[in-house]
Amino acid sequence: MKWRADDLKDKVAAICCGGGIPATDAAMIADVLVTTDMRGIHSHGVVRLARYLDCIRAGGIKPAAEPVVLNESANSIMASAAGGLGIPASVKIVRRLLEKAATQAISIATVNHSDHYGAAGYYAMMAADRGLVGFSASNTCPLVAPTGGRAATIGNNPFAYAAPGVKHRAVLFDVCMSKVAAGKLVIAAEAGQKIPEGLILTKDGRPTTDPGEIWHDAVMLPFAEHKGYGLAVMVEMMTGALGMAGMMAGVHSWNTQPGRDADTGHSFIVVNPEFFGGSDAFRARIDAMIDELKACPPCEGATEVLYPGELEWRREKTALENGIELPAASVSELTRAAKMAGVELGATA
Amino acid sequence: MKWRADDLKDKVAAICCGGGIPATDAAMIADVLVTTDMRGIHSHGVVRLARYLDCIRAGGIKPAAEPVVLNESANSIMASAAGGLGIPASVKIVRRLLEKAATQAISIATVNHSDHYGAAGYYAMMAADRGLVGFSASNTCPLVAPTGGRAATIGNNPFAYAAPGVKHRAVLFDVCMSKVAAGKLVIAAEAGQKIPEGLILTKDGRPTTDPGEIWHDAVMLPFAEHKGYGLAVMVEMMTGALGMAGMMAGVHSWNTQPGRDADTGHSFIVVNPEFFGGSDAFRARIDAMIDELKACPPCEGATEVLYPGELEWRREKTALENGIELPAASVSELTRAAKMAGVELGATA
Repeated sequence: MKWRADDLKDKVAAICCGGGIPATDAAMIADVLVTTDMRGIHSHGVVRLARYLDCIRAGGIKPAAEPVVLNESANSIMASAAGGLGIPASVKIVRRLLEKAATQAISIATVNHSDHYGAAGYYAMMAADRGLVGFSASNTCPLVAPTGGRAATIGNNPFAYAAPGVKHRAVLFDVCMSKVAAGKLVIAAEAGQKIPEGLILTKDGRPTTDPGEIWHDAVMLPFAEHKGYGLAVMVEMMTGALGMAGMMAGVHSWNTQPGRDADTGHSFIVVNPEFFGGSDAFRARIDAMIDELKACPPCEGATEVLYPGELEWRREKTALENGIELPAASVSELTRAAKMAGVELGATA
Repeated sequence: MKWRADDLKDKVAAICCGGGIPATDAAMIADVLVTTDMRGIHSHGVVRLARYLDCIRAGGIKPAAEPVVLNESANSIMASAAGGLGIPASVKIVRRLLEKAATQAISIATVNHSDHYGAAGYYAMMAADRGLVGFSASNTCPLVAPTGGRAATIGNNPFAYAAPGVKHRAVLFDVCMSKVAAGKLVIAAEAGQKIPEGLILTKDGRPTTDPGEIWHDAVMLPFAEHKGYGLAVMVEMMTGALGMAGMMAGVHSWNTQPGRDADTGHSFIVVNPEFFGGSDAFRARIDAMIDELKACPPCEGATEVLYPGELEWRREKTALENGIELPAASVSELTRAAKMAGVELGATA
């Protein structure tokens, strides 16, 4: 079952509208989710849509809320999503930040009283597509045990950056701080798969191979021990603490508390290379860096060295040419969302 | 053999002066190296001093070079260390950056034509000690294989951040992107120890347990596979590419080419919480975050959860009270440096 990108975006937007989301915001959500599926990150694509509608129904997300700027300077914005959807609030604030970034070496924005903002990398790429360097981060409800601990205490706190090339579109790096993303556990659980031991603990701190524990307060473990933990703290500091959003237990789970303002925090930084060696020189250097990485001889078992984002660009190209293949969990959640919104899912490409 | 902090700083400064470094710069180097030893990061402390002098003798580092500002704006500095020592250039540029940071939400500086700058975390703490958030990064000569590769292609690219509390001094996080720091391999090799397989490869791409391979073009592996690799690329992008410094193979090793300008690049970012919820609120939130992390119940085999930097503060306190204990490799390199500079190492505390 394959979808044409534009058709899928139209469908997602229609579902959003059916769920009470204004048309402009619906188009933003459609672009973020479908672009993410096109890049092969199905854990953060249309699979999330039904849950947004669940939260709207439960009263935890205000579907038509407009973000409010709380504090602003020549190179900063402190904003609130006012209890609305994370995606349109983030797209609007990053657009405003990019206007500042045109005349500033470095600019920063924070968003509080927000919710799930989709894939962190989308916002970093908004900057890279304008020739700028972009950083994007969000906290989440507690999901990860700090090193030496056994309870979910800090979020898995996604973080992304992107920087533009010319020959190569951009480097794009998007990770969360747990060994495995929550969305990937959901996909595995819905596919009835097991996971290796050591990725998560049950809520009581016991090892498990059942990804479905993610729905029962499973505890995720940070990647690379204290390194992943320390990066999760960095994101918490730049989102929750700096942006005056919920922090740690102050961020509410959309799974267990869909009726509550999650008070998620996001943070965005944009750097303008024009204030350093110039944009053209910078982009040429990103190309050169990528070429040098790719010239590294492959190790046993590998056929080539990839640069961060290379797989995503290949998948996006294939999806544009041949249509988007969605995993079963995404189709099932999309179908559920369509039903909730009273939209006919209809034929596909 | 223990050292009083002030005595060791005086001794290091005297050695620097004996090596042709101006007194002001010598004091900066002494503070950076000895502070780092006090925090227990001996791999980046006084053990490095003799190598700085080696490079000065070989002509690769100009001991009295002054950094030059190449480009400047209200919230940015692009500078060159002019082939001089990385530490004094970085201290001077970060001081200048902190002046800007007082009236800017976010500020950034880059330094090129530099060399080893000591521990990344020192500069992040310069910001935190003024109530600001600090980030610090540097590239290095190629040491790490990208995921899927088997040759040293990118640096291990240290990265640090710090954010101030009140009750708790600060969170401080300082890592490099390889599974193990080069300095730690040097310490292990000088102590005649073996290392576990999987941390490094020989220059031909074979597994090894000999840390001494670090002196024979050993290839380091990134932590957490593509995550450590992607973070190394981030640092390369923010230092080499943005700051117009050497990139990848364009950064020269001080071990194999001590007579050459290493053209190392650094990057520093400072965020001022006054432009968000206010400095007092921010610091209170950092304290609250730390308290919440430390309240996490410990896992089997652990007695407590530590926050990033906690071990460093404990060690620094102990070193101030009881003196600094240096490992054998540090004493040996310090002795070598003293001889090169014609300084009597003398009695200790």
